Amino acid sequence: MSLAAKQIPVARDEEKNAQVVELLFEKFGDRCSRSKAVCEQHGHTTTWLPNQAPDAVVYAQSSEDVAEVVRICAAHKVPVIPFGAGSSLEGHLNAPGGGVSIDLSRMNEIIEVSEADLDCRVQAGVTRKQLNSYLRDSGLFFPIDPGADATIGGMASTRASGTNAVRYGTMKDVVLGLTVVTPAGEIIHTGGRARKSSAGYDLTRLYVGSEGTLGIITEITLKLFGQPEAISGGICSFPDIQSACDAVIMTIQCGLPVARIEFLDPLQVKACNEYSKLDLAEEPTLLLEFHGSEAGVQEQSEMFGSIAAEYGGSEFRWATKAEDRTTLWQARHDSYWASFTLRPGAKGVATDVCVPISQLAECVTATRADLDENGLLATIVGHVGDGNFHVLVLVDEDNSEEVASAEAFVSRLNTRAIDMGGTCTGEHGVGQGKMKYLPYEHGAAVDVMRSIKKALDPDNIMNPGKIFSLN
Amino acid sequence: MSLAAKQIPVARDEEKNAQVVELLFEKFGDRCSRSKAVCEQHGHTTTWLPNQAPDAVVYAQSSEDVAEVVRICAAHKVPVIPFGAGSSLEGHLNAPGGGVSIDLSRMNEIIEVSEADLDCRVQAGVTRKQLNSYLRDSGLFFPIDPGADATIGGMASTRASGTNAVRYGTMKDVVLGLTVVTPAGEIIHTGGRARKSSAGYDLTRLYVGSEGTLGIITEITLKLFGQPEAISGGICSFPDIQSACDAVIMTIQCGLPVARIEFLDPLQVKACNEYSKLDLAEEPTLLLEFHGSEAGVQEQSEMFGSIAAEYGGSEFRWATKAEDRTTLWQARHDSYWASFTLRPGAKGVATDVCVPISQLAECVTATRADLDENGLLATIVGHVGDGNFHVLVLVDEDNSEEVASAEAFVSRLNTRAIDMGGTCTGEHGVGQGKMKYLPYEHGAAVDVMRSIKKALDPDNIMNPGKIFSLN
Repeated sequence: MSLAAKQIPVARDEEKNAQVVELLFEKFGDRCSRSKAVCEQHGHTTTWLPNQAPDAVVYAQSSEDVAEVVRICAAHKVPVIPFGAGSSLEGHLNAPGGGVSIDLSRMNEIIEVSEADLDCRVQAGVTRKQLNSYLRDSGLFFPIDPGADATIGGMASTRASGTNAVRYGTMKDVVLGLTVVTPAGEIIHTGGRARKSSAGYDLTRLYVGSEGTLGIITEITLKLFGQPEAISGGICSFPDIQSACDAVIMTIQCGLPVARIEFLDPLQVKACNEYSKLDLAEEPTLLLEFHGSEAGVQEQSEMFGSIAAEYGGSEFRWATKAEDRTTLWQARHDSYWASFTLRPGAKGVATDVCVPISQLAECVTATRADLDENGLLATIVGHVGDGNFHVLVLVDEDNSEEVASAEAFVSRLNTRAIDMGGTCTGEHGVGQGKMKYLPYEHGAAVDVMRSIKKALDPDNIMNPGKIFSLN
Repeated sequence: MSLAAKQIPVARDEEKNAQVVELLFEKFGDRCSRSKAVCEQHGHTTTWLPNQAPDAVVYAQSSEDVAEVVRICAAHKVPVIPFGAGSSLEGHLNAPGGGVSIDLSRMNEIIEVSEADLDCRVQAGVTRKQLNSYLRDSGLFFPIDPGADATIGGMASTRASGTNAVRYGTMKDVVLGLTVVTPAGEIIHTGGRARKSSAGYDLTRLYVGSEGTLGIITEITLKLFGQPEAISGGICSFPDIQSACDAVIMTIQCGLPVARIEFLDPLQVKACNEYSKLDLAEEPTLLLEFHGSEAGVQEQSEMFGSIAAEYGGSEFRWATKAEDRTTLWQARHDSYWASFTLRPGAKGVATDVCVPISQLAECVTATRADLDENGLLATIVGHVGDGNFHVLVLVDEDNSEEVASAEAFVSRLNTRAIDMGGTCTGEHGVGQGKMKYLPYEHGAAVDVMRSIKKALDPDNIMNPGKIFSLN
């Protein structure tokens, strides 16, 4: 068993691929790169799956550019893989059949912000941090925050979420409409700017999370939110994982509208202390944030304080100053990178699952025990208000036994989560890494997904070899 | 031009239909009705479109029953139309090609409630009021409330919402998973119980709002919410429509988390006074409700009070006692029926649109002016926090000129809303009544919807003649 076991083969026609690359180079000149380094960099970045580079990379500047590339590829039945910031974790960007990576990072225009309607329209290459910098003086903000500074297009494609999802939802909830280039190279628009609609099939939410397999998202209309009048937050440690999770469960069941409630296991805290120069107690830890009016935030904090106390939590350590909060949340967002301080040079096998909140304590506890029993070095961190948590297993990729053990662990984790009524991925997406768990989770519904894929992309040119096999 | 103009023809094979009805009668005995009255009642109820009755009605008691009926119909390519409470408004239940109505109202079991996870699983025939009665002692509630006591299956199928949507979302937001009978008569499960997932295409949200054209929803897993610790609400009138709408716009833009904010125009208030024996000022009126902690509700109320005052609103008339609130909201939910007191015996042409909140005042004002200029008697009422409002035009259906005038008005209203960045239906759905506006709203994206329909239901047996034509 190797880390490559999950990558399914995709037919590759070297001749057609080369022909298309030639045509694209003629058309796009130096916006079409055939350099090996560039191609490999576009195959994968933070993912743990082996690299499968495309044959060329085209830097698009408009929806029309994307449509043009797709039309050329469609005419020759050559694969097309959209690329944003390269921060996906499950091999979404690999090109198992070769073909063309369309890099949308230069499509980074914030087209329109409507303060009156609390919405905006952006090109797919805009990153979440870029958008929030732009919005800073408007009184609005965009809450979805995966760890990386991902592009909005990539985040829509993987149905991303992050630390604020427990309060503000995921990409599924904040995308109002899309511009999409279809597999035939046509530009269509889905959704709109109304806050709700019953006008036909919800194509917006079909494309959100479809990982580039049905079309390429080039523009996104997003809900924005008013910056809260008051923010408070802080940190609290617990005697064991069970108690920390039980405090989360109670918080959610009480309907306390926390903006963020994040769990870090002791190893993760240790790694963050090292990487971000902090001095947090290396115990099961919750990191919280409350948004609201001054009085509302005060009330929420007090309620959480009494819940934490009930479960043996330490005294809540406040981060009242904005810069202290920024330090804490930056450390949280850097936790992926921090983990590598525990084993420099290791390969990180990142995985995420999500379970109903009542199963959280049991699932996290069983997962920690599983790791320990199998001698795997791994950090656990999670958006636990949603029942979502991540495990990053640090392996020596040259040690096949260790790799196999990590693989087997990931398999058990996914099965465990699905058996508890959960899902094999809360926010990372399926890509190549989670393909084998999809039938276990969705059964015959996967056939419906396949029918849709075949209907919309009959030649299977859009990001082939991802989500499910077509056979 | 007649009210029937929007109904597109669907091929009807009398012989096959009769053959299938015979088979179903053999199979289901007295759970298969061929009575003309029963069939007509299942064709439409509150809709204004002419009745097109199915050939038979089968009362299903389980997903397996539904699958069995669908398999028999599929084998003979005979239409199948799901029926819940019969409260849809756009001709969703008509059978333009004849065929079989599957009545799911006897599938009314609340299968499971998880207080720990704030979710439940119900059969499609459970009504929203039945669910809330069941939940009363649990501390939980289900917020989606279209005027009628619709079934959860019907509400999912039309992507329904209602007065609480501004705070709690629409069916799109509260459905976690579905059991669906496919057009081939297979039973599949979509989604799950995790609060978020990136595992594959979002079939749940594809079926939600697909109006029975892709499959029949037989069971639904729903998010529930904690009953708020405190509720307050009341009523406030304004000198003109513009001021009332401006107060709504400001409320939303300020991020005030109102649970309900409803608009009634003076004619609607008059009708409600008459029907529900109230004594409200017959002026543009907002009806509000706040949910939260005691302090939070107090704070929200005060904030709204100052916004209302800024726009010339009357003093806020509180409904602090639960029974006063119930009276007010029952009157609001009965507003459809109340409107007929203005013109007894009239036919009601009900329509709804939704616009970005910044366009609300302009859209409602222009709509009222349009009605008045054309001498149409109509009430306006709306879930204005979402930018969604309804018009009920009361016509003499034997007066063809008046009917034509109402039709032309509906057409202008839909175009106006779409031109403002809005949608031709916020929550009623497309059915037969809104079909002609869909291409104007979604353009080439309608072709993608058609491709999906053809892929999943190649023989077009699932609720044919709805949402779009297949040609």
